[in-house]
Amino acid sequence: MATAGPEIEKLIQLLARLPGLGPRSARRAALTMIKRREQLLEPLARAAREVADKVVECGECGNVDVTDPCLLCRDPRRDTEMLCVVEEVGDLWALERAATYSGRYHVLGGILSALDGITPDDLNLAGLLGRIAQGGIKEVVLAMNATVDGQATAHYITDLLEPSGVAVTRLAHGVPVGGELDYLDEGTLTQAFKARRPL
Amino acid sequence: MATAGPEIEKLIQLLARLPGLGPRSARRAALTMIKRREQLLEPLARAAREVADKVVECGECGNVDVTDPCLLCRDPRRDTEMLCVVEEVGDLWALERAATYSGRYHVLGGILSALDGITPDDLNLAGLLGRIAQGGIKEVVLAMNATVDGQATAHYITDLLEPSGVAVTRLAHGVPVGGELDYLDEGTLTQAFKARRPL
Repeated sequence: MATAGPEIEKLIQLLARLPGLGPRSARRAALTMIKRREQLLEPLARAAREVADKVVECGECGNVDVTDPCLLCRDPRRDTEMLCVVEEVGDLWALERAATYSGRYHVLGGILSALDGITPDDLNLAGLLGRIAQGGIKEVVLAMNATVDGQATAHYITDLLEPSGVAVTRLAHGVPVGGELDYLDEGTLTQAFKARRPL
Repeated sequence: MATAGPEIEKLIQLLARLPGLGPRSARRAALTMIKRREQLLEPLARAAREVADKVVECGECGNVDVTDPCLLCRDPRRDTEMLCVVEEVGDLWALERAATYSGRYHVLGGILSALDGITPDDLNLAGLLGRIAQGGIKEVVLAMNATVDGQATAHYITDLLEPSGVAVTRLAHGVPVGGELDYLDEGTLTQAFKARRPL
């Protein structure tokens, strides 16, 4: 079934392992890359090589970048009094897309999960405590996913940080912007009702 | 809004230009690549570089491969008496996935289109006539898409090949396997009815 040499088949196989691409769309992607060799394939090969060579995990916050500390930890305009704790780097990127928060981050690298056997030792909690012990941080925002494991982790961290005296907050629950009540689950509606605000 | 250095942003931008990936899924894909550096990012960088360096268009049939002639044109087991004409390399790959045809191919590199200003001179028709003039080809299967432009191109090629005396066929129209009549258009149903076969 090979229609081309092993090099092209290899590229297709690897592309098919990316999230959002299956075997068929990987073929289409590879073909698009080959057709637009100068505009797409060449730059992609260069970019992938460069990232593969340079990417590091930020020793400070756990973000991925080509420098350590990362772009966000080096940015002097970011508020050093606030620390936002997230599960994964993807969550950090999602919050940055919202462009609403200007403090620093801390990536746990996972979430407590009895099912998957993830214990506190598997998360970067020592780093978190270390950063808080250095002083200067006044508020820790827990931005875990609103899942059972996410909330359990948030509670665990709240207990962990209690002795430090730092203020611990979490993201608000409520109706998503653009969301319709009829499609929302009861848990969200209950939370949104409880946390209602004056207009 | 940059959450990481320009190298990573560049990789994301390029991934977002692949079919099937948007800005958000490109971010997720980049993150997956970075997380699985040894298993995914490194091999992808190598594969993309190798394909970028080696890929060529087959001078014989127009397929893309890392050798010229391509894997299919070099394969001695393929029937040299049949030639299947397709619009694009992707169509060739689709037919190969079906593993039903064992002759050679000819890629036109496009389709006649008054709207897009594509004339016969823009297609690889000279190559097609040249291959037929060499002799040995007994049947040409026109595997254009079942679109207006595809069918117009098929008719044009039929006229073009008439003097050569080669048998010219086209793919059958009909009910797709697994298709439900209720969801099919009238044109397809009419063609399927006309071309009905004894059980």
